Amino acid sequence: MSKIPVLEIFGPTIQGEGMVVGKKTMFVRTAGCDYSCSWCDSAFTWDGSAKDEIVQMTADDVWKRLQEIGGRRFNHVTISGGNPALLKNLNGLINLLKQNEIEVALETQGSRWQDWFVQIDDLTISPKPPSSNMKTDFDKLDDIIHQLSERNRLKYVSLKVVIFDEADYQYAKGIGERYPQVPLYLQVGNHDVHGEDIENLTSNLLDQYEQLIDRVVQDEQLNDVRVLPQLHTLVWGNKRGV
Amino acid sequence: MSKIPVLEIFGPTIQGEGMVVGKKTMFVRTAGCDYSCSWCDSAFTWDGSAKDEIVQMTADDVWKRLQEIGGRRFNHVTISGGNPALLKNLNGLINLLKQNEIEVALETQGSRWQDWFVQIDDLTISPKPPSSNMKTDFDKLDDIIHQLSERNRLKYVSLKVVIFDEADYQYAKGIGERYPQVPLYLQVGNHDVHGEDIENLTSNLLDQYEQLIDRVVQDEQLNDVRVLPQLHTLVWGNKRGV
Ligand code: SF4
Ligand code: SF4
Repeated sequence: MSKIPVLEIFGPTIQGEGMVVGKKTMFVRTAGCDYSCSWCDSAFTWDGSAKDEIVQMTADDVWKRLQEIGGRRFNHVTISGGNPALLKNLNGLINLLKQNEIEVALETQGSRWQDWFVQIDDLTISPKPPSSNMKTDFDKLDDIIHQLSERNRLKYVSLKVVIFDEADYQYAKGIGERYPQVPLYLQVGNHDVHGEDIENLTSNLLDQYEQLIDRVVQDEQLNDVRVLPQLHTLVWGNKRGV
Repeated sequence: MSKIPVLEIFGPTIQGEGMVVGKKTMFVRTAGCDYSCSWCDSAFTWDGSAKDEIVQMTADDVWKRLQEIGGRRFNHVTISGGNPALLKNLNGLINLLKQNEIEVALETQGSRWQDWFVQIDDLTISPKPPSSNMKTDFDKLDDIIHQLSERNRLKYVSLKVVIFDEADYQYAKGIGERYPQVPLYLQVGNHDVHGEDIENLTSNLLDQYEQLIDRVVQDEQLNDVRVLPQLHTLVWGNKRGV
């Protein structure tokens, strides 16, 4: 049976971001990313710092582990990374979860297509704005959205852009214009992914959230949008595994 | 043309709660409620304290006012109260908004049916738990959910229960069991609807939010659920008109 590089399995907790914000879920975090965003809050998945924690697991191993720690206290699993879309063989795990009546959410930056995208119940595509120092391959992203649309999957898909500065904001507007048929979520960037002073972090994040709201409400070219903070960061700061 | 008792029109801002949390929207708040919840955060809509601010407006008046203050900076309007479901003639406003390609959200406690429920894009039914001191009429609520289901509207509907204490939590579980086909949102109650110390309020709300998450993640009878704070209260405290 083929294996998946897994860095963390934890939960149940709540999803703090995006299209199913607040949803009770388990998390499976895969290792490896084709990007290296300047502000990545999961850099340990690709920068080598946690390479000893990576475990090669079969779909069955992951499902067993999910049940071990989650018991019967979940019906939803979120697969995140890193970029889980690097893993062609993730279909085994997705099938196994669906067979067990588990809903599956997944987040990827939209740099690669996988055929199993059409099985995901809540697919978040999160292209990275200029502040990440990454460059979006729009041919690829166009193709991903086109394929999802052709297969009538857009109701299970959202776009999410993290905003740190004005250039990011303009980038997000471009995404909204380019893919008007896909729900767009704007998320406040966390400037301090290592900060440990949670009260400070919370009040900074809420200030930045308010500023982003102010910007959006004044902008007539950005009406069909949802603006969210990261709830898990407000509650738990930068702690891992919650 | 028939008139609607309106207490506030404001926005654009973001929806801080529930099924379209984060959505850029305008608000229209109608006056009058058939309930008097102990912790009502909009008691001015029914307790007489703002009776001089109530304006009787036609649908045209409301639409004009929305455009005056919102310009072209919105495509979504949220109607809240009080209980807007007291107003049979709200269909005029709803039709006018839809003709202008505006999406319409509405919140009601589920004590009355109106035929125009089937035109609402995001209908939040928020039955009140024991701490409100109100008593849910479950025959009525069953009938509302049944009618929405018959007309194939459940994908536009959610249930939301505000949680202050253990009895409320049990009530919310009962709602989830009774209407498994309707998405359920749990929301942290705001114990201090008059508090003006926003930092204190934020940190209390986040503490209570964390406690509610802890309770939910341990509960195997409450899996299919989303747990949310009130984002507008985190950002703006108890201020009106934001
Ligand atoms: S795509 Fe995601 S996981 Fe990869 S570097 Fe960027 S933020 Fe980190
Ligand atoms: S139903 Fe809503 S508006 Fe009416 S009293 Fe209760 S909380 Fe207030």
